[in-house]
Amino acid sequence: MTDSTRKNGKVFLIGAGPGDPKLLTIKAAEAIAISDVIVYDDLVNPQILAQAQLNAALIYAGKRAGNPSIAQNEINQLLVTHALLGKTVARLKGGDPFVFGRGGEEAEALAFAGVEWEVVPGISSGIAAAAYAGIPLTHREYSSSVAFITGHETTGKDAYIDWKSVAHAADTLVVFMCARSIGTIARKLVTAGRSPKTPIAIVRWGTYEHQEVFVGSLEDLIEAVELVPTIEPPAIAIVGEVVRLNERLSWFGIDELRQPLRQNEISEEALRVFCND
Amino acid sequence: MTDSTRKNGKVFLIGAGPGDPKLLTIKAAEAIAISDVIVYDDLVNPQILAQAQLNAALIYAGKRAGNPSIAQNEINQLLVTHALLGKTVARLKGGDPFVFGRGGEEAEALAFAGVEWEVVPGISSGIAAAAYAGIPLTHREYSSSVAFITGHETTGKDAYIDWKSVAHAADTLVVFMCARSIGTIARKLVTAGRSPKTPIAIVRWGTYEHQEVFVGSLEDLIEAVELVPTIEPPAIAIVGEVVRLNERLSWFGIDELRQPLRQNEISEEALRVFCND
Repeated sequence: MTDSTRKNGKVFLIGAGPGDPKLLTIKAAEAIAISDVIVYDDLVNPQILAQAQLNAALIYAGKRAGNPSIAQNEINQLLVTHALLGKTVARLKGGDPFVFGRGGEEAEALAFAGVEWEVVPGISSGIAAAAYAGIPLTHREYSSSVAFITGHETTGKDAYIDWKSVAHAADTLVVFMCARSIGTIARKLVTAGRSPKTPIAIVRWGTYEHQEVFVGSLEDLIEAVELVPTIEPPAIAIVGEVVRLNERLSWFGIDELRQPLRQNEISEEALRVFCND
Repeated sequence: MTDSTRKNGKVFLIGAGPGDPKLLTIKAAEAIAISDVIVYDDLVNPQILAQAQLNAALIYAGKRAGNPSIAQNEINQLLVTHALLGKTVARLKGGDPFVFGRGGEEAEALAFAGVEWEVVPGISSGIAAAAYAGIPLTHREYSSSVAFITGHETTGKDAYIDWKSVAHAADTLVVFMCARSIGTIARKLVTAGRSPKTPIAIVRWGTYEHQEVFVGSLEDLIEAVELVPTIEPPAIAIVGEVVRLNERLSWFGIDELRQPLRQNEISEEALRVFCND
């Protein structure tokens, strides 16, 4: 091993999970505790950042929807540079880094640069939001498959999505980053042949104490969205028969934050939530 | 609160993750540490069980494929009974309890019995096996959706699976519990129109030190399976273009355990792995 090799650092691509800081893995907590540099995204709970060493450098690399403040290749370069300077780097992403986290691109940049790296999987936000809303994604009677799609696509790319396939992709659909698009997606799913009566749950701030769950059908949502066109992020939607189990299996959070989606029942609270920012 | 209510216990439906004991969440570790009773499945790492209190009762509730040793309703009853006796119960399942874990059925039984319960999501085995094999499930260039299906279905139920839909369900398919069925599934995917050249990775003992990864194409697998019909569980398969990234992004485990799937290249080690039990 040469001197220059020995001086190199290492990058941990870490899934920080959905929000509840107790849903961090032990491996992630250990990697954060030994890191010199923490590069973190928007949806990483500040309580997780607080576990970094006192002298660790905290670098924000979030990309709020519509306001790309830092380009992906700049983030890649940041990780490579710090590692080549001999630093241990924790790259913290909400959820899991390899499920809509662009972790693959960062891993490619690190591998290309010859930097040592590893992935620390995190609890996927889609799985956790459903669990905290009392919705099993699969169930022997209602669902034997689940598909994860993203609602956060540019209009250009969206044009290439085959909604006919997506609508029937699996018994349960989980739509990540859906706040801006779930109304449109609901319409496309119905147009593609999914029943308008299909239950849907929208979970905002999944696993956080202030988690909000809206339950209705695709047609309820389509009606509601005509009134108030977007939902505030962060939001994840679950579509499919399993959503009905929420009524019996809701175990987390404040009942008042559980709302029907039906237009004529929308409360002031729900209106606030549905309003445009 | 009446006396009888106060005496009741609580059940934690816990995802113990994929195998690597460091992939347990902090919340799961805390729940295990305070539990009087641990009810665990086959694929829970013994190192996780070792974290239970010394006087905790450890109850095995595994169901090996083909040998159902304990029925689901017996497990449900076990959880309810211990909770009604005032015990804190950790129900440990491999991966995540609400993704092919039948946790939904256990939650329903607990809710019906009026027992306090909560879900502790775990790192899904499919997500983790892919990550430890160096395969991002989504990637801006190769995949914008991922579907989870199970290979472990009875023949009767299998007849109802619409393979045409499944084959095109998402850019990436993750097939859980596929050891006995992946050859058949590969054939069905090709028959349903998925290209025979589509890359597939089979990950055995994902995230364990002795993890094995086999990489090839659907047609390679179909040929190999004619020679040696089944794979030893536990195994998870990933199907889709993202599998190609494994060559560059493989970061975990022993290189010798990474094997090509092509029939004419199958090594003795691979043959051992592919042999029937």
